[in-house]
Amino acid sequence: MNALPRKPRILALSGGVGGAKLARGLTRELSVDELIVVCNTGDDFEHLGLTVCPDLDSVLYAVAGLADDARGWGRADETWNFLDALRAMDGESWFQLGDRDLAQHVQRSAWLRSGLSLSEVTARLGRAHGVRHSIVPMCDEPVRTQLRTAEGWLDFQDYFVRRRAAPLVHDLRYVGAAAARASLAWPAIEPQLDAIVICPSNPYLSIDPILAVPDWHSRVRERRAPVVAVSPIVAGDALKGCAAKMLREFGLAVNPVSIARHYGELLDALVIDSQDAKYANEIEQLGLAVHVTQTVMRNDDDRGGLARTVLDFARGLRARSLASRRA
Amino acid sequence: MNALPRKPRILALSGGVGGAKLARGLTRELSVDELIVVCNTGDDFEHLGLTVCPDLDSVLYAVAGLADDARGWGRADETWNFLDALRAMDGESWFQLGDRDLAQHVQRSAWLRSGLSLSEVTARLGRAHGVRHSIVPMCDEPVRTQLRTAEGWLDFQDYFVRRRAAPLVHDLRYVGAAAARASLAWPAIEPQLDAIVICPSNPYLSIDPILAVPDWHSRVRERRAPVVAVSPIVAGDALKGCAAKMLREFGLAVNPVSIARHYGELLDALVIDSQDAKYANEIEQLGLAVHVTQTVMRNDDDRGGLARTVLDFARGLRARSLASRRA
Repeated sequence: MNALPRKPRILALSGGVGGAKLARGLTRELSVDELIVVCNTGDDFEHLGLTVCPDLDSVLYAVAGLADDARGWGRADETWNFLDALRAMDGESWFQLGDRDLAQHVQRSAWLRSGLSLSEVTARLGRAHGVRHSIVPMCDEPVRTQLRTAEGWLDFQDYFVRRRAAPLVHDLRYVGAAAARASLAWPAIEPQLDAIVICPSNPYLSIDPILAVPDWHSRVRERRAPVVAVSPIVAGDALKGCAAKMLREFGLAVNPVSIARHYGELLDALVIDSQDAKYANEIEQLGLAVHVTQTVMRNDDDRGGLARTVLDFARGLRARSLASRRA
Repeated sequence: MNALPRKPRILALSGGVGGAKLARGLTRELSVDELIVVCNTGDDFEHLGLTVCPDLDSVLYAVAGLADDARGWGRADETWNFLDALRAMDGESWFQLGDRDLAQHVQRSAWLRSGLSLSEVTARLGRAHGVRHSIVPMCDEPVRTQLRTAEGWLDFQDYFVRRRAAPLVHDLRYVGAAAARASLAWPAIEPQLDAIVICPSNPYLSIDPILAVPDWHSRVRERRAPVVAVSPIVAGDALKGCAAKMLREFGLAVNPVSIARHYGELLDALVIDSQDAKYANEIEQLGLAVHVTQTVMRNDDDRGGLARTVLDFARGLRARSLASRRA
């Protein structure tokens, strides 16, 4: 096992794409002793007998430098001959499994089947990719996000990939979350934390599944360090995925204010994009600190830069909060 | 399910490479109603959580026209990016799994895990590849060939692939064979048979595992139709694999006479290569009919040609045997 940092300063909650980019940025700014990234596993699923963990893999690949930046998911230099052969056999080819990516799923599934926990397996996969930072699943128990649509409850991948997120969403649930336990012991982590960072991930699909695990919810609710989120909504849209579509379907405005309202009491501060500066006042009126910056991450400089900005902002909040407690 | 032929004329027993070539030849000469190919499953194994069936796949790929003729195993137009990624992760990369080939193993394993028998799964895979002839596993139960070497008992793939068939072999066993049942009901098949053809496969590793299943042994022993084997030994060597090496290690001459002696009472006739014509007399003295022909199969014409020759030879024997019974 990779030993977890004994005194981490930053705990990040992350989904896939956007979250993975900030997670990579954080690993560039923080030592292996300073950071733990907790990943959503609500969109994990069993496919062709393999356990696929899209968000964990997106973060591992991003941090390892193996991700395909252009496509936004999966591995660089990927080929698709497995899928091609499967399609020729009339197999279940709706979920894109690249040839290189498949090594991850086959190895993970073999290790899980041998009795290792998802945390142990994830640590091994990280090590195999040369990742030294701690990337951990939110819990070891299976949690599965489902969406209630006009067609009834759909499993996440069925909704997101097979139906290309087309069905109207009425509701979500995170099956298994209520009975799951956080994958990390809190007393060892919490005292030193400078901040909890909520990455720019879909709140419904990536962050809420984590917060649906009671341990994580109470830890975030009862935090001593500030909770800082980065808005996944920029200029009226989500950069990737279906956060904007879901906000609309829930009758909410597609802007960072809706993100602030969504997390409510769980949030101390929100980082929003320069294009959304006009919403800063409204968010502050909700009682949150706001930082306006360039949040779109096109390359590693952007990722490291946003990470640094978020960390500086969060540490400033932390310092002010400590000062006000002393006063 | 593909329905099995109701009145097959030819039953072929086959291993991988050489057997697969003759099996392909037989499918070119016989209709789907006339042929059943029974494949060795003794070198099947579990690898990375996948059930791999090398001989079944070699025959399916050969018959479907998907095989890589030059390499002699696996699929044409293959790529190796899965294996490359697995190796980079320090995974178990000693067994060559091509990206396209992997679709077969993943699909098979998923179907087996869903509760289908190996026979059902094999029929589905055949259908998926457009194979209309009946290619069947020798049994549905797992049978695993093991070899006793100076290093103790080794699993077949461990011996054959990981150690490149280097260790000296003292003995073999077919774990699970004694308790296995043949995958086909005999009364429906036997009455019409013109011949049982033993393909040019390694006797120890490919055919004996089939004959170690009591049903198959008694069926072959009590046959009414002649049993005709094609020698896998040509000009003092095996074209592929380690049959020659094993004969030597057992202190036997590397020639078709040893093949004839090996099968003993189970055999009525042997087809040997023109390069081995000098052994014909010695084999006839063992009480076998012999046919000398060109047995090396370099292309589909060779495969069809050898199949036709074997069929003509076998049917001639069958006719003579019926005539002598009537006389």
